[in-house]
Amino acid sequence: MNYRMVLYIMGQILKVVALCMMLPIIVGLIYGEHHLLASFLIPVGITLVIAYAFTWRKPKNNAVFSMEGFVSVAASWITMSAIGALPFVISGEIPNYINALFETVSGFTTTGATILSDVESMSKSMMFWRAFTHWLGGMGVLMFVLAIMSSNDSRTMHMMRAECAGPNVGRLVSKSKFSARILYGIYITLTVSEMIMLKLGGMSFYDAVIHACSSAGTGGFSCWGDSIGHYNSLYIEMVIAVFIILFGVNFNLYYYLLIRKFSLTFKNEEVRTYFSIIGIATILIAASLLRASESIGDAFRHSFFMVASTITSAGFSNTDTTDWPVFAQTLLLVLMFIGSCAGSTGGGMKVARIMIIVKTGIKELKYIVSPRTVAAIKMDGKPVEKDVVRGASNYFILFMMLMAMSILLVSLDKYSIEESASAVITCMNNIGFGVGHFSTAGNLGGLNAFSKIVLCFDMLLGRLEIYPIIMLIAPRRY
Amino acid sequence: MNYRMVLYIMGQILKVVALCMMLPIIVGLIYGEHHLLASFLIPVGITLVIAYAFTWRKPKNNAVFSMEGFVSVAASWITMSAIGALPFVISGEIPNYINALFETVSGFTTTGATILSDVESMSKSMMFWRAFTHWLGGMGVLMFVLAIMSSNDSRTMHMMRAECAGPNVGRLVSKSKFSARILYGIYITLTVSEMIMLKLGGMSFYDAVIHACSSAGTGGFSCWGDSIGHYNSLYIEMVIAVFIILFGVNFNLYYYLLIRKFSLTFKNEEVRTYFSIIGIATILIAASLLRASESIGDAFRHSFFMVASTITSAGFSNTDTTDWPVFAQTLLLVLMFIGSCAGSTGGGMKVARIMIIVKTGIKELKYIVSPRTVAAIKMDGKPVEKDVVRGASNYFILFMMLMAMSILLVSLDKYSIEESASAVITCMNNIGFGVGHFSTAGNLGGLNAFSKIVLCFDMLLGRLEIYPIIMLIAPRRY
Repeated sequence: MNYRMVLYIMGQILKVVALCMMLPIIVGLIYGEHHLLASFLIPVGITLVIAYAFTWRKPKNNAVFSMEGFVSVAASWITMSAIGALPFVISGEIPNYINALFETVSGFTTTGATILSDVESMSKSMMFWRAFTHWLGGMGVLMFVLAIMSSNDSRTMHMMRAECAGPNVGRLVSKSKFSARILYGIYITLTVSEMIMLKLGGMSFYDAVIHACSSAGTGGFSCWGDSIGHYNSLYIEMVIAVFIILFGVNFNLYYYLLIRKFSLTFKNEEVRTYFSIIGIATILIAASLLRASESIGDAFRHSFFMVASTITSAGFSNTDTTDWPVFAQTLLLVLMFIGSCAGSTGGGMKVARIMIIVKTGIKELKYIVSPRTVAAIKMDGKPVEKDVVRGASNYFILFMMLMAMSILLVSLDKYSIEESASAVITCMNNIGFGVGHFSTAGNLGGLNAFSKIVLCFDMLLGRLEIYPIIMLIAPRRY
Repeated sequence: MNYRMVLYIMGQILKVVALCMMLPIIVGLIYGEHHLLASFLIPVGITLVIAYAFTWRKPKNNAVFSMEGFVSVAASWITMSAIGALPFVISGEIPNYINALFETVSGFTTTGATILSDVESMSKSMMFWRAFTHWLGGMGVLMFVLAIMSSNDSRTMHMMRAECAGPNVGRLVSKSKFSARILYGIYITLTVSEMIMLKLGGMSFYDAVIHACSSAGTGGFSCWGDSIGHYNSLYIEMVIAVFIILFGVNFNLYYYLLIRKFSLTFKNEEVRTYFSIIGIATILIAASLLRASESIGDAFRHSFFMVASTITSAGFSNTDTTDWPVFAQTLLLVLMFIGSCAGSTGGGMKVARIMIIVKTGIKELKYIVSPRTVAAIKMDGKPVEKDVVRGASNYFILFMMLMAMSILLVSLDKYSIEESASAVITCMNNIGFGVGHFSTAGNLGGLNAFSKIVLCFDMLLGRLEIYPIIMLIAPRRY
């Protein structure tokens, strides 16, 4: 492996992180939180020192293969989480480092699980940094580097693949740099649109920024303990639900819309399935809430919002689901695994992957009956490459294996099987709330340090789709 | 599909079922339960009428492909469960037909989950029938037909595959008929040996028969409410633990032992892994029980017995696991999914399949790094056929999909997510006890009729390894 190039890429990524950590300083200056400036300036200094040490000289051998791409992305995400946790510790707002690390990993991975029991006591600049980690982690920090770097373009696809979600990643345009710029352009436009819509709905400017950042990454951090339920506003709930659903759509489709290739957008099988699942799940859950004697308006309002929040892995809530009918809770659990579209900022296994897996299952049944007459699996009318099919099945297998191992490790803690499983599922799928003790009403602060570290790995495994993290920690024989 | 041949095979199977239903009549005569004779004679009569109607004339076209094999096995298992439930209903010992059906499916599929809250009030002949369904279901009723029928041998492998467990089924000898006879010979020898050992340990003859039948099928029905814990005898617990472990071994290996091919037995990778898992799990669970302040003797006694009972899917218990440390309970849950060896009477996904799946996962990781240098998956030193690898992965995928659907359906009942999931997991893996409310201390009688029918399908899906049941109910286009 080309270690020098791995460090070089890490250095570039850390520069972006340092740049981003300047933003909460501005927020602090605006809101007069001068005592917090040092909490950000120290980590910025540390980051810049490391970043410039790593990028002092560009390696002569700048070959980057998938191995280097995966490892540098994984190492960067871990490093930026370790550094991103420092402001919380230095300011004393989250004095325990493991807790701060958990909160930061939860931020960057857009999980939105929290260890805070009293979110509202947090300062404005810390709260902004917490929400901003969602925004940055949503589209990916490496993608940001690609967008601003004028680098040699030949090998960057390997790196894009490491940070981008879904079974199959393609460039939009021939140069990755321009692909990255287009994606970030769309991302910023959508985020700003949501911010304006929220402000129009009566949110303060600060709250609008926090929730727009948080929705954009489909993260789920809110500045209120009772999340979106705090505002008790149908308008705000609907704006957020619609936007997180939009952020859960494959961003390539927005590009196709921009260049007026409408058929590519509207005939996309994944996105049609994604909207169908949202529709059907909303109706089923609303029906079960009606049976549990909610009014028809409330039933649909709660159902639609929670379905959107769960399938996109945002993890906002407008109601407490602890008392929901078990069927509704179980359906949410299934949605967690499905997740949003590939190439979006959402989590879970991704609709496209689940579709390939389901089609693989159906194909296997047909194969058992008559092995000679089975057609290849198709998506959007075209046969799916064998490698992609195999990759989707094996991703599912690895995901389940790692999930079982994690649940076993977390079960050493003091919680029930249901709760241990819930914590792992919510973290691996980057949702942020689970069922039982860790439902929308709970937080994960009560877990011990060992469990929190396991869950940090789970969140990273979920966000980076397993391989980069495994590549980083696996023993190497060459 | 050759429907006439499907009915013909069903007819042959039902003759065996009728024959087997004569056995409890003998038990009834011995124990003077003359009032129960009609409860068995009526179903025997019905079965014989159907059986002879189906086999009146042998179809001229006796071609049997995998489709016919799968469908006739699935249809036979459902029919024999429907008929096998009648004695319980006619006698009034389980007055509700759905409950009786559940108990019988649980018997034939060797699940051992029960709806009875007072097992001990059951009559001797009914209790015998209940345990005997385990014995018959363990090795398979079609296998019995193959062993006694002097049929055309050319196509019977298709049928063996439908009832036999595991990713890859091979004949022991060139004729299926003799393979089936050898397997049943070993099965009977082991069962009788266990019966003698149990009798020597102080069990009554009747109890020894019940528990030997129940262990042989790795079913788990006992004649006591507190299962094996009732005897409070270390000797009996160890005899049963050792025998269920033996019944969980691939029966082909006993044949290799018989014909003195020792290396084929002891170098078998699956069986070595199976014993390693039992060893490691016993130590880990004993350690967690020691921490929960059991004495070292009790810790190992409970741990070894429950590990054996869980991995083989027998579902006997010598202690109440409800208060066990969560880690120990979670580890048992993992063992449920692993299950015993292919070609044994045990349940779960089978060790061989899990090994192939784990190796597939590891191979995928290697593939991601360097796609060109990845070797094929090996078992016992030989490369595994691509079809077997694909089959194992896809079995896992289908299993998980069906499990999620079943949990969703059972969650419509009145239990928690944990309990609904537990009921489905225990039924699909043919264990018989779960966690939480449905742990070793609970039974499934409280579920509603709809949930019980879903669970009946789950038990059949687990025992027949999905495909036959799906083939039977799937829409047909040819």
